[in-house]
Order: sequence, then C-alpha cells, then structure tokens
Amino acid sequence: MQYIGINHDGDTWAAALAGTGPGGVRVFPLAPVTDFWADADGWQEKAQSLVAGAGSVPIEQGSVERGTVAEVPLVPASARVICVGLNYKAHAAEGSYKDQELPAYPTLFGRWTASLSVGHVPVPVPGGEAGLDWEGEVAAYIGRRAESVTEDQAAEAIFGYSTFNDITARRAQKLTSQWTLGKNGDFTGPLGPLVSRDEVGDLRDGLELRTRVNGTEVQHGNTRDMIFSVPAIISLISQTFTLHPGDVIATGTPEGVGYARSPQWLLQPGDTVEVEIERLGTLVTPVGEPSLRARA
Amino acid sequence: MQYIGINHDGDTWAAALAGTGPGGVRVFPLAPVTDFWADADGWQEKAQSLVAGAGSVPIEQGSVERGTVAEVPLVPASARVICVGLNYKAHAAEGSYKDQELPAYPTLFGRWTASLSVGHVPVPVPGGEAGLDWEGEVAAYIGRRAESVTEDQAAEAIFGYSTFNDITARRAQKLTSQWTLGKNGDFTGPLGPLVSRDEVGDLRDGLELRTRVNGTEVQHGNTRDMIFSVPAIISLISQTFTLHPGDVIATGTPEGVGYARSPQWLLQPGDTVEVEIERLGTLVTPVGEPSLRARA
Repeated sequence: MQYIGINHDGDTWAAALAGTGPGGVRVFPLAPVTDFWADADGWQEKAQSLVAGAGSVPIEQGSVERGTVAEVPLVPASARVICVGLNYKAHAAEGSYKDQELPAYPTLFGRWTASLSVGHVPVPVPGGEAGLDWEGEVAAYIGRRAESVTEDQAAEAIFGYSTFNDITARRAQKLTSQWTLGKNGDFTGPLGPLVSRDEVGDLRDGLELRTRVNGTEVQHGNTRDMIFSVPAIISLISQTFTLHPGDVIATGTPEGVGYARSPQWLLQPGDTVEVEIERLGTLVTPVGEPSLRARA
Repeated sequence: MQYIGINHDGDTWAAALAGTGPGGVRVFPLAPVTDFWADADGWQEKAQSLVAGAGSVPIEQGSVERGTVAEVPLVPASARVICVGLNYKAHAAEGSYKDQELPAYPTLFGRWTASLSVGHVPVPVPGGEAGLDWEGEVAAYIGRRAESVTEDQAAEAIFGYSTFNDITARRAQKLTSQWTLGKNGDFTGPLGPLVSRDEVGDLRDGLELRTRVNGTEVQHGNTRDMIFSVPAIISLISQTFTLHPGDVIATGTPEGVGYARSPQWLLQPGDTVEVEIERLGTLVTPVGEPSLRARA
C-alpha cells in the first residue's frame, strides 16, 4: 500500500492511494493522522480491504482524484524526524569529514515537523545563504512503539519508507558544531508518499537512489552501502528514548552533495531537484525565492 | 500572569494561575493550547480580565484548585525547543569545551516536544547511562511569528519565560559530534509555569538562577552573564527558519554541571533536583528508575 497525508475536514488525515485507471490515481481518506498512527497495522489491513473492494465497486466511491486535495506530510505534529549524518562511506569521505575516521555510532541530528513538506512545494532559499544543498535519502517510518528494542524487534517496528530530500542551508549548518539550524529551514524537508514495508523489503537488499538537478544526475547510491542499518539505528535510539508510531528516521545520503564539489554547486531559485528511489518513486522539488518564507 | 498546560476535556489546554487565598492557587482553563498560541497576546488580555474579575466574584467560579488537574507542558505538539549550548562563559570553560575559544555564534541543538515534562514528574535514568546530568536554565516562549526579525522585533516576540531543566544523558550526548540523542531522553525536559514577560522584564537585567541536588547547591548563575541574549538568538534563528508562537528557546545553563566535576556527580534514582530562578519559581524533579520509561 501507498499512503499520503491530506488536508481533510479541516484536519490532517491519512489516506491510501490506489488505481491507475481512467480515473487516475485515487485517494481514499482513512482517518485523522493521529488515529492512523495509533493503529498503523490495523489501518494497513483496512486499507488493503478497501482497495481490494474497489475492484468490485466503482473506485470513485469514497475516494477523490489525486491532485484535487492538498497533500501534507503523513506524520503527527509531535513526530521526531531523526536524521542520520554520514551513513554512506563515500559521503563520509567527502566534504568537511574527509580526514576523519568512519564513525563508530550513527551521527544523529534532528528535524522538527515544522520543516517538513511534500513533493512539488517550492523551497525558499533563506537570505544569507549562497544557495541550498540537496541530500537525497530514504525515510523510514516507525509503526510500533520501540523502547530498548533489539535489532530484530526494530525491523518489525518499521511501517514503511518514503523518498526524502534533507535540503540543507550549509552556511547555517556550519556556524557551530551543531547542525540543527541549517537542517530546519522552512519547507526544506519534502517527503514522498509512504510505501508500506511489505512492498519495499529490506533496505540491506539494496535500493538504487539517484538525485538529479535540472535533469543532471548528481547522486547515485544504493541503500546496501549504508554504514548503519535502519534496525541498528532504531535499536540504538530506543536505548535512550522511546520511539512512537509516526516518528521518522532519515537514513542519510550517499556521496555527491553540492557543497563538497569543486566548484561548489548549490541550488538556486528556478532549479528543480528530483530524488528517485527504486520502489519508492520520484520526489520533485522546485527551488524558490526567499520571499516564499512568508508562507511558513 | 502565570500559565500552565492542563489535560482538560480530553485535550491539552492553556490555563491561567491565580489566587493564593484559603482556596489555594486556582487554575482557570482558557483554551485548547493551539488556540491559545494562535492569539497569545489576546489571551493574555482575557486572562488578566478574568483574574481581576475573580476579585468581585468567588474565585472558585470557573476555576479548579491547582493539584486537582494533571499539568502538562504549555506548548503545541509541533513546537520546536531550540536549546542553546555553552551560553554562559564559565560553563563554556568547563568540561569538554575548556580548550576551545568562546563561540562566535550560539550553539543550537534541538529537543522534540515528546521529551518535555513538568515539575514533580520522575525522570527515568536510561539503561546504559551512569546517571543523568542537570542543566538549570531559563526557557523563553515565542508569542508572535518571527521571520528574519531584528533584535528589537525579537524582544517583542517573547511572550514569557519559565524554569527549565535540560536533563542530559551524557553518554548518549557524546557518542558522536551531534548532541541530539542525549538531549531527548524520555521525560528529561521539565518546564515550570510560564510567567508573562511583563512580570519578568529583560533577562539582561539579571535573574539569579540556582540548581540544587538533594538540597546542595550545584549551580549558581545570573542571566546577565549570558553570552548571547535571547533577542540575539531569536533574530539569528529567524534568518534561517520562521519561529511560531509556542516555540521555546532554552537559553543555556551556567557552570556547575555534574559531568565536569571532579569527581563526576550524576543524578541517580531517588535523587531530587531543583531549579530556582528569580521571578520564575522553583522546578522540582525527582529522578527515577529506568522502568519508568514504560510510561513514555
């Protein structure tokens, strides 16, 4: 199953995607997003029945055409987006970190949900930045509460995955030792539709990941090259704090980011960046003027 | 005015505190927390009328006795808690940072609202930590949207202040270069009641801050010794991302934290830590067993 968040009845809802017939992709509203995450496994079963049932009744029943509703990130406002830095060997060896040894633990930093967005929403370049940098990556969604879990338990706690672009304001990121400021710019965290785990499998088996800027490929990696697996990351985090359904692990980006290139290449207003990941689809993000911050 | 968050009508509400008569401190429910922050200045006026009116009518009308309702942090789930590290000179010179120059910019890291708590709620020591460390500090609450604001505008955007204890899992904090993991333990971010800015004044004029462990003073600082003022911090952040009402700036801790002592002193189950700040009151936090994580 694939899921998105939508604005519905004045609230944020979870919805299932289905159908590619003459009516286009259809959106089935399921439940307010907090209710969805309170029983994600249960909603997966219900959504599967709903979409299967749509084969015998007109798919238009109870659904709307995709593109006619406003899409939003499929996370509760309280969700933690825990990002992993330097999780691909070749990326850990580029840029500022090239003289350091490979990390013994995943380097974890945070995004707040207020920085999240979805595909096709323009990302403003903040004033004072020479541009923005791309970081195509896989996001993993927690489906079950995880407190001090083993790696095997952690693997079962993953509900699904989506594309993600961890768009970064490098100047702000590198003002001090802590990266938080530059990782939370307005609209800088677009997420694609969530694809349930049963349709994706294990990232360690390898998904191809490509990032393109204005059509030119700038990143090409494979999730089998992650230094720390998603279950290992979840298990580690869960020793210190308890993960809740709807929390997101942003699993890190492969090599090829813009600031580490020679010459440096940063995103400017008018550019378009795409993150394409096997089984997860393509996330398209236009880059816009600083004035778009007025919408934040 | 003083405000707290409460569980009310199955939701999180903002409430005003008033009265110290024979009925004790009274709690006046005002509005769901998101409605409160959508018009914090308006609610401040309404709360003042309400409490003034309570002089002519029985204060029990429309209020409940404090202690009869469950208190919660007065922040929306989407709030960003932006913490400032190393913001007092003497603290920047203790512990791991003693050989480094004073930072040119505030060192910003993040807490998610899921780690927040209130006074008197026990904080579990996570398994694998030798204990927890205290960091008594002032929290500042954003009352007005702040995008690319000057320091003068930033000063006006502050709605009020509270006590805060940035309780830290040092082992997890120092696993890698990024502090996020060790700063988000379950229940590790207790906040005291919010005191509106008109009753506090400017932190640069100086508020005494003391932290005690089991009655022994371990920190004693004054907010006039902050390296970066709250308006300067807000102005800087707002150049990169837009602050919203209900966001919190945790302004940093003075010297005297436990891990930097010789011998090291960390909080153990059974200990009690108090943060007392002039005009803001005393925040009391008991320390408990790892098993309390089951409540998170």
